[in-house]
Amino acid sequence: MPINVYFAAGAARWPQYEAPLKAAFAEAGLDVALSNAAPDPAAVDYIVFAPNGDISDFTPFAGCKGVLNLWAGVEQIVGNQTLTQPLCRMVDPALTEGMVEWVTGHVLRHHLNTDLHVLNQDGVWRNGAVPPIARERPVTVLGLGELGRACGRALAALNFPVTGWSRTAKEVEGIRCLSGEDGLTEALAGAQIVVLLLPLTAGTENLMNAERLAALPEGAVIVNPGRGPLIDDDALLAALDAGHIGHATLDVFRTEPLPAAHPFWAHPKVTVTPHIASETRAPSASRVIAENVRRGEAGEPFLYEVDRARGY
Amino acid sequence: MPINVYFAAGAARWPQYEAPLKAAFAEAGLDVALSNAAPDPAAVDYIVFAPNGDISDFTPFAGCKGVLNLWAGVEQIVGNQTLTQPLCRMVDPALTEGMVEWVTGHVLRHHLNTDLHVLNQDGVWRNGAVPPIARERPVTVLGLGELGRACGRALAALNFPVTGWSRTAKEVEGIRCLSGEDGLTEALAGAQIVVLLLPLTAGTENLMNAERLAALPEGAVIVNPGRGPLIDDDALLAALDAGHIGHATLDVFRTEPLPAAHPFWAHPKVTVTPHIASETRAPSASRVIAENVRRGEAGEPFLYEVDRARGY
Repeated sequence: MPINVYFAAGAARWPQYEAPLKAAFAEAGLDVALSNAAPDPAAVDYIVFAPNGDISDFTPFAGCKGVLNLWAGVEQIVGNQTLTQPLCRMVDPALTEGMVEWVTGHVLRHHLNTDLHVLNQDGVWRNGAVPPIARERPVTVLGLGELGRACGRALAALNFPVTGWSRTAKEVEGIRCLSGEDGLTEALAGAQIVVLLLPLTAGTENLMNAERLAALPEGAVIVNPGRGPLIDDDALLAALDAGHIGHATLDVFRTEPLPAAHPFWAHPKVTVTPHIASETRAPSASRVIAENVRRGEAGEPFLYEVDRARGY
Repeated sequence: MPINVYFAAGAARWPQYEAPLKAAFAEAGLDVALSNAAPDPAAVDYIVFAPNGDISDFTPFAGCKGVLNLWAGVEQIVGNQTLTQPLCRMVDPALTEGMVEWVTGHVLRHHLNTDLHVLNQDGVWRNGAVPPIARERPVTVLGLGELGRACGRALAALNFPVTGWSRTAKEVEGIRCLSGEDGLTEALAGAQIVVLLLPLTAGTENLMNAERLAALPEGAVIVNPGRGPLIDDDALLAALDAGHIGHATLDVFRTEPLPAAHPFWAHPKVTVTPHIASETRAPSASRVIAENVRRGEAGEPFLYEVDRARGY
């Protein structure tokens, strides 16, 4: 009997994922019947899922042993009351690498003030004061999950003094780790560049509000590849206009695509990027899915299972 | 008797270097009389030098044990026939770090195509195809001296497949090292991004000529923080206009500041930066100078002594 895997991550993604998933199942030695057609729900063993996909009610999938999310963020599914099956986040090694590259690139862009030259190719030789080197530029990473830890380590390897913050205490080699409300104030107080890599939960929504933005030193730069609602947009615009925040590079927004009329687009101190900081790559993500199916069949604990109470 | 050190690196730099040099000599336990005033040449033990400084004829400094250059490049002094004293290049650890940061930042800028967004904040949500990750983007570093090795290692740590090339064979961990003329063709053939960090010698001038540019794959990007004359400017402009070279980010030029009328400034595929890729930092450079004075006095070999025949 093959294992029945239902690809319920949207018709648009099926052509992108069908071959890599089949290859990954074969590589893992699994006999899988993979389908994107609405199956007999009772026969489904695993669901490959993405929000805006094909399922909103999980009740009929009574024999389903696991719902395997294609994306890292699960805020659009974790509150679904019909979902009683184990839910796993995606931790795609290529997604993590892509995120490290985007974060490192944009932190260096602000550190080096690259835009001054990219935006002004006007014949003026702007060689000013010798800038600080990375070891003189404190960076804070909010969030020490898979992505925050990887980004913090890459920045520390480039000599940036990195402070990491998480709600509950964590330890990461080479990074000063703080936690809790007092730790957050301390993490913000010394940061010239802040990278937001927190999951979106009730506790992190609007984390960067007027008060927290005011806790940053003057001229601090915000880099947000995490989730749009981590920032209070109006408070950020006010802090940019007041000159307290030096710049914001934002990859994620409350509404995506960011509407053309949104003030972020025209603001000279905001750089909008179109939710490209990192994306799941089909070949590597498919291998993670296959590994979780293998674990489910072997009775081993899943990788990256979501804690519903915590929200991620 | 104090050791006489003559600061002959230009009046403008004296205020920047006087205190750091004195601190570094004291830290090294050296009794130094440091002066920037024209001294009795016969009494000078060491000269701290920079081109466009205070000396063109070294003949009168008959008792001078070493000429300690403040910069990494020595092409403006190495051919001076009056210079018979030992000549040392500067290898400033902060300069190396700054160079690694500039190179890594600009390689990531091209890898991520950051300019597409920085230059177009126009309300259009440009999320195209998922880009390659670093491990899919071969980078070649020409030059495996102190700076080339450090940059190559940093890029390899970010997963870029790095090829390094040098005239004579070298080995650097984590980097594919090639050498010689055949090696150069091979190093260029696979490179999506090429970083130029060669010293300027008769053998490297115009290294990147029409033929070598043609050896790069279509769309390759050139990053030059090394020396302006490494590139044949007209050949580069022709290769950019033909669409064979995708972009060039240039920090160094045959004439600096680059004249406002130079076609590089207005070219849409060229980014000019004003010789800022890295600069010597006074505190760390002063410690290198002090260490070389200590070595000279102790009869130990100098750090970074220049091989006149080789030119660096």
